[in-house]
Amino acid sequence: MKRIGVLTSGGDSPGMNPAVRAVVRKAIFHGLEVYGIYQGYQGLISGNIEKLELGSVGDIIHRGGTKLYSARCEEFKTVEGQKKGIAQLEKFGIEGLVVIGGDGSYMGAKALTEHGYPCVGVPGTIDNDIPGTDFTIGFDTALNTVIDAIDKIRDTATSHERTFIIEVMGRNAGDIALWTGLAGGAETILIPEDPHDMDNIAERILKGHARGKKHSIIIVAEGVMSGNELAEKLKEKIALETRVSVLGHIQRGGSPTVADRVLASRLGARAVEILMNGKGGRAVGIEKNELVDYDIIEALKMKRRADKDLYRLSQELSI
Amino acid sequence: MKRIGVLTSGGDSPGMNPAVRAVVRKAIFHGLEVYGIYQGYQGLISGNIEKLELGSVGDIIHRGGTKLYSARCEEFKTVEGQKKGIAQLEKFGIEGLVVIGGDGSYMGAKALTEHGYPCVGVPGTIDNDIPGTDFTIGFDTALNTVIDAIDKIRDTATSHERTFIIEVMGRNAGDIALWTGLAGGAETILIPEDPHDMDNIAERILKGHARGKKHSIIIVAEGVMSGNELAEKLKEKIALETRVSVLGHIQRGGSPTVADRVLASRLGARAVEILMNGKGGRAVGIEKNELVDYDIIEALKMKRRADKDLYRLSQELSI
Amino acid sequence: MKRIGVLTSGGDSPGMNPAVRAVVRKAIFHGLEVYGIYQGYQGLISGNIEKLELGSVGDIIHRGGTKLYSARCEEFKTVEGQKKGIAQLEKFGIEGLVVIGGDGSYMGAKALTEHGYPCVGVPGTIDNDIPGTDFTIGFDTALNTVIDAIDKIRDTATSHERTFIIEVMGRNAGDIALWTGLAGGAETILIPEDPHDMDNIAERILKGHARGKKHSIIIVAEGVMSGNELAEKLKEKIALETRVSVLGHIQRGGSPTVADRVLASRLGARAVEILMNGKGGRAVGIEKNELVDYDIIEALKMKRRADKDLYRLSQELSI
Amino acid sequence: MKRIGVLTSGGDSPGMNPAVRAVVRKAIFHGLEVYGIYQGYQGLISGNIEKLELGSVGDIIHRGGTKLYSARCEEFKTVEGQKKGIAQLEKFGIEGLVVIGGDGSYMGAKALTEHGYPCVGVPGTIDNDIPGTDFTIGFDTALNTVIDAIDKIRDTATSHERTFIIEVMGRNAGDIALWTGLAGGAETILIPEDPHDMDNIAERILKGHARGKKHSIIIVAEGVMSGNELAEKLKEKIALETRVSVLGHIQRGGSPTVADRVLASRLGARAVEILMNGKGGRAVGIEKNELVDYDIIEALKMKRRADKDLYRLSQELSI
Repeated sequence: MKRIGVLTSGGDSPGMNPAVRAVVRKAIFHGLEVYGIYQGYQGLISGNIEKLELGSVGDIIHRGGTKLYSARCEEFKTVEGQKKGIAQLEKFGIEGLVVIGGDGSYMGAKALTEHGYPCVGVPGTIDNDIPGTDFTIGFDTALNTVIDAIDKIRDTATSHERTFIIEVMGRNAGDIALWTGLAGGAETILIPEDPHDMDNIAERILKGHARGKKHSIIIVAEGVMSGNELAEKLKEKIALETRVSVLGHIQRGGSPTVADRVLASRLGARAVEILMNGKGGRAVGIEKNELVDYDIIEALKMKRRADKDLYRLSQELSI
Repeated sequence: MKRIGVLTSGGDSPGMNPAVRAVVRKAIFHGLEVYGIYQGYQGLISGNIEKLELGSVGDIIHRGGTKLYSARCEEFKTVEGQKKGIAQLEKFGIEGLVVIGGDGSYMGAKALTEHGYPCVGVPGTIDNDIPGTDFTIGFDTALNTVIDAIDKIRDTATSHERTFIIEVMGRNAGDIALWTGLAGGAETILIPEDPHDMDNIAERILKGHARGKKHSIIIVAEGVMSGNELAEKLKEKIALETRVSVLGHIQRGGSPTVADRVLASRLGARAVEILMNGKGGRAVGIEKNELVDYDIIEALKMKRRADKDLYRLSQELSI
Repeated sequence: MKRIGVLTSGGDSPGMNPAVRAVVRKAIFHGLEVYGIYQGYQGLISGNIEKLELGSVGDIIHRGGTKLYSARCEEFKTVEGQKKGIAQLEKFGIEGLVVIGGDGSYMGAKALTEHGYPCVGVPGTIDNDIPGTDFTIGFDTALNTVIDAIDKIRDTATSHERTFIIEVMGRNAGDIALWTGLAGGAETILIPEDPHDMDNIAERILKGHARGKKHSIIIVAEGVMSGNELAEKLKEKIALETRVSVLGHIQRGGSPTVADRVLASRLGARAVEILMNGKGGRAVGIEKNELVDYDIIEALKMKRRADKDLYRLSQELSI
Repeated sequence: MKRIGVLTSGGDSPGMNPAVRAVVRKAIFHGLEVYGIYQGYQGLISGNIEKLELGSVGDIIHRGGTKLYSARCEEFKTVEGQKKGIAQLEKFGIEGLVVIGGDGSYMGAKALTEHGYPCVGVPGTIDNDIPGTDFTIGFDTALNTVIDAIDKIRDTATSHERTFIIEVMGRNAGDIALWTGLAGGAETILIPEDPHDMDNIAERILKGHARGKKHSIIIVAEGVMSGNELAEKLKEKIALETRVSVLGHIQRGGSPTVADRVLASRLGARAVEILMNGKGGRAVGIEKNELVDYDIIEALKMKRRADKDLYRLSQELSI
């Protein structure tokens, strides 16, 4: 393999830039040429492609977002779109592709793989919901953005002795809610993987009040229900005025943490090694602190689970 | 005067703690005794009052929120409630009171003044909407919390080439929107003090697109309309998908900036000096970098205006 | 076991507070009583001991430093001092002890164990140099404090096209230097575990200059040599003006990151479980994402190694 | 005037980028062309000059350092060097120049003025030591960087009950030390403008200890003496172990605060207005919240003074 490509796709996440940097520098270190595809699969179809040099990825390791831009692309979900993409790759002489992104991006990589084109998926999303890896690139940064918000809201919650409901990202995965809830000392955490019981939630709050606790924080993953919906439901149970905060898009931004930069560097470099070894159709990840890679089609079938121990611990420590 | 009291009231703001610290230490430095009234006017009525020492305000200068707690209090809006408060102050032998808070708190201080009780108001609110001062305690911290969020959202806006609407606090005052809009390079800023024209806003965005600008940021103060309402109205004008972010309660929290800690220290100390001089019924502030104080009843009649020059500048620089 | 104690010892690290909180709440959740020993082993000898309740550890999860204070204690290195400590524990009816700290603290725990007193060590230090765990509590926060400083210094290095030498903590362990060097895009990283070659370092810098790189960053762990010493040595090799920055004590402070709060919560809770199971003389840790525990005497004999792969990767990516 | 230039010079400061952005956009808004001179006066002499467009200053408002680079330049201190610079300006048809920087940069602007070339100085330095303005661009950001470090060090100082000496920037001006000392609750502040008395300092510390204060923080501006020297001198007076932290170059970096971005925008735009009005030889500033401008030669003769009131206040509040 002499020439590879790299693209970022789907919702951006902090750490995509160091991942791109690692792909480019690792490849050049080993004598390969690297092409950047801009705007994800959409740029792949339209040929928005450019050669990258060492300097192209200078001074980006600490930047949020993605220098290669990202986009959603309906056309690439069709066979026709995929073929256009492969035609572009062939036109530029690109023999293998690194795709950095979330599950939608992996579906694109899977399609390319099924067309016989060598592809490696790198898990880049804040949601930590990609199978085949314990952690995704961007998750750690998002956690710290959320905790910073929780710590700020706690100032107000404490001063006014109020109950706050904080809605965080996570459609199918409760990892952001779970980790930040534990780290933020939240009294209650609602995640999509676990059934919740409004009576039980109300009871915990009342018990806290009885014990003299004057403020409390409830974290809800958007996949369970919205913060406002939860406030309504709570009101039906107990006479408690709550305030709702929806953290929203700030969770995707910010300079990546050290953990995310290191993870991105390791996974990006490993993706290049796999292509150099002539392999495609793989998804890289980190499990039990070791780099791993799986067949991308198999990986997409794996199931992720919420960490039951962490959930139980959060309940024991927030008594 | 031998013994004074201090309370915080209304929405909390970062810098209330250094203001309380300054009141306590300045008073003790000059040989006075200081009593803290907890939970604002509500605690005043119920007698939730305690003597404070130098150590009571140790290690709070950098903390958000207020160590004295805050609360809204309907009862204190009545003459009866006010008389109960004065009775408590007399019971504890407190001869003068420093009130730290926003316009609601000033109304309480005005009432006490009208009853002949010596009171000094210190402007503590993030909204920068108190007359008689160029800046309120907490405004600078809130600005930096908002800009941090804008910078994070810009990562995503840039990566996805999208238009974001960011709703910030400010019911009657557009200062937070104006300063952060200018500092965040926002294309459009909507403030309550200035009429807006949806056609003009739409046109600016289209012009930016024509010039190659691929993302843009619109800041709207909550007093104009909600972010979601603005998104709807824009949609009627141009075929443009926008994302909305409502920053909400994080704007009230966080460790106070240096500017807020210094302002709080200066104003808190000045309030004590005024009481020591036997004066009451005053509101302290900073104007043109100098400490000032006004009759609190007169101050409440003054009009604040948005900074036209700043608004014009923001428009010139965001072309 | 009905009553346990907890202390923090040695250099403080961010995350000690959530670890103490976890010990206290986990214990109370399971019906135990918990006593806090202030000022580490010194307070143990002098009996600076107090019962802790749920509320004693409220509002500390996000605070740097340690609420239990820390201190170095020569006397506890003697058998006599250790016996005094055990006498105090017996006096208060404390049947088991959780010790949170670095290697010096572990030596104390080992001594208590050898006297037959049940003790569990929890690794709390920013240096990541405790055997029997992949990560210590405080390491992740320190990494992010250092990277924040590196990112700031890079602003200046880039603007002035200069070479900066940044000295970070790490007497025997290069983990802080290695992780932040990789995450900060440092051209050169010097760690105690690896021999360095001044000629090679000089050559890398010159090669970078030849390639058009106008600024560079060198990270040196204090255990290798001081930043100033390195600057002197480099000057002998090449005519290059460097600036030195010694990060120093800021590395120990700050609000703990989510990763550190979660790790602290898990390890603190696990330590209590071990004592509840009637075991002592253990050290808890996390390896490959799983909680583990070792005989504390055996653990102290284990060897930690620098991560060769990470080091090699940092060299490949900083070409 | 049809075409103007802009350069940054001397030590970089956060806010130089928004100042450059404001110069460029304000000028283009009014129909002027703008040229950027890279690497300060050195680039002026060598002709490292390039036309800037609206997009050239996109996405830099939040960045530390300076996109135009900076450098010290001995040659520009000579009349010959200055004439070379003017020749370059004439060659590019640049009719007026905005110089952003500290006192060294102002000397260059003064020289150009004396040669009859129209020049406007914009105060960009963290030290707040430029005459003719209450605040310089970068000062507010540096204050918040320093306070963040002080807050971190306080975690450790509190946990270990120790005295810390923190050395901050400021050769001739003590503003950084004074503001951060007040905002950080420092017991003692040493500034170049004020004589210090070692006996008095020692006494204050002992008095604090007597009162039960277990840790203390001393801030010293580098212009008084180094942190290590102060530690030595204190040791001669009292048996007190201190720790020293030299904050160094991190003080120059970081994303500019809102106050600095707004100040930079206002001053940069005003500098363009002055050139548009056909005036040169001016220095812009902000005094009492109003934009002002002075003859640059007169400005350089003005004296700045430390704020005595702030100093006294810091002493009263740190009892």
